[in-house]
Amino acid sequence: MDCLFCKIINKELPAVVVYEDDECLAFLDIYPIAEGHVLVIPKKHCVILSECDEETAKNLIAVVKKLNSAVCSAVGCEGILNEVRNGAAAGQEVPHLHFHIIPRRENDGFGWVYPPGYREKMEAKGKLDEIASNIKKKM
Amino acid sequence: MDCLFCKIINKELPAVVVYEDDECLAFLDIYPIAEGHVLVIPKKHCVILSECDEETAKNLIAVVKKLNSAVCSAVGCEGILNEVRNGAAAGQEVPHLHFHIIPRRENDGFGWVYPPGYREKMEAKGKLDEIASNIKKKM
Repeated sequence: MDCLFCKIINKELPAVVVYEDDECLAFLDIYPIAEGHVLVIPKKHCVILSECDEETAKNLIAVVKKLNSAVCSAVGCEGILNEVRNGAAAGQEVPHLHFHIIPRRENDGFGWVYPPGYREKMEAKGKLDEIASNIKKKM
Repeated sequence: MDCLFCKIINKELPAVVVYEDDECLAFLDIYPIAEGHVLVIPKKHCVILSECDEETAKNLIAVVKKLNSAVCSAVGCEGILNEVRNGAAAGQEVPHLHFHIIPRRENDGFGWVYPPGYREKMEAKGKLDEIASNIKKKM
C-alpha cells in the first residue's frame, strides 16, 4: 500500500506516537499548526469518514475525546479544534482518514477565511427547507 | 437552561431539522459557510467533546458519518469538512457541543489562516519527543 499513514502504521516510516491500540494510532503532526498537534488514524485504511465502518469511527472518536483532554492538559491550551478533512477539496493532504487535534489559544494566529457574504445567506429560509428536504431523502 | 441549542432541542426555538433520534439532533446552520452546512448536537447538554460521555460521542460520530454522505449527495459537493470547536479560544460560538458538516468545493472561498512559519516547526524533533511524553503521561 503506497500510503504514507499505512507506512507509519506498519513501522516503515517513523512517527512520534502518543497512543496506540489494536485499531488506531495517534501521533504528533510533523507540520504542527500548534504545539501538541496530534493526528488520530484508523489502522484499517480508508480515505474519508463516510467510507470508514461504524465501529472504527466510534473507536476513533472515543480516542479523540480522551486525547483532547490529555493534549490540553499536557500543553496547557485554552481550547481544542478537532477537524476531519474529507477529500482534497476539503483540505485533506494525506488520503488516509485522520482526526486533527489542534490546541488553540487566544490570538494564536490560526483562523478561518470564509466565503464573502456568507453571513447573509441565512435569510434564504425557503432554500433551507428545500436543502433539508433533499438531505432527508438521502438518509 | 439558557442555552440556544437546548432551546432548539426543546422546540422553544425553530430549526430546520435534517435528522433526529433519542440522543441527537441535526439541523441546518442558519449562518451556513456553504449550502448544506449542518450541525449535529447531543440532546444532553455538554459544552465540549471531552465533557461528553463516551456513548453519546459514539452516537454522534455515527450520525455525522451518515450525514456526511447524505449531505454530499444532496448538495453535490467535492469534499466535506467536519469540525468540532471546543471552547471559545477554538472558535466555538455556541457553548453546546456541535459537530460541523461543511460541504466543500474547489475554490469555494473557504480556507484557513495558519500561524506564521508553522511549517518550520517540524524540525524541532527533540521537542516533539518531549511533547509526546507529556501527553502520554496524561492518558
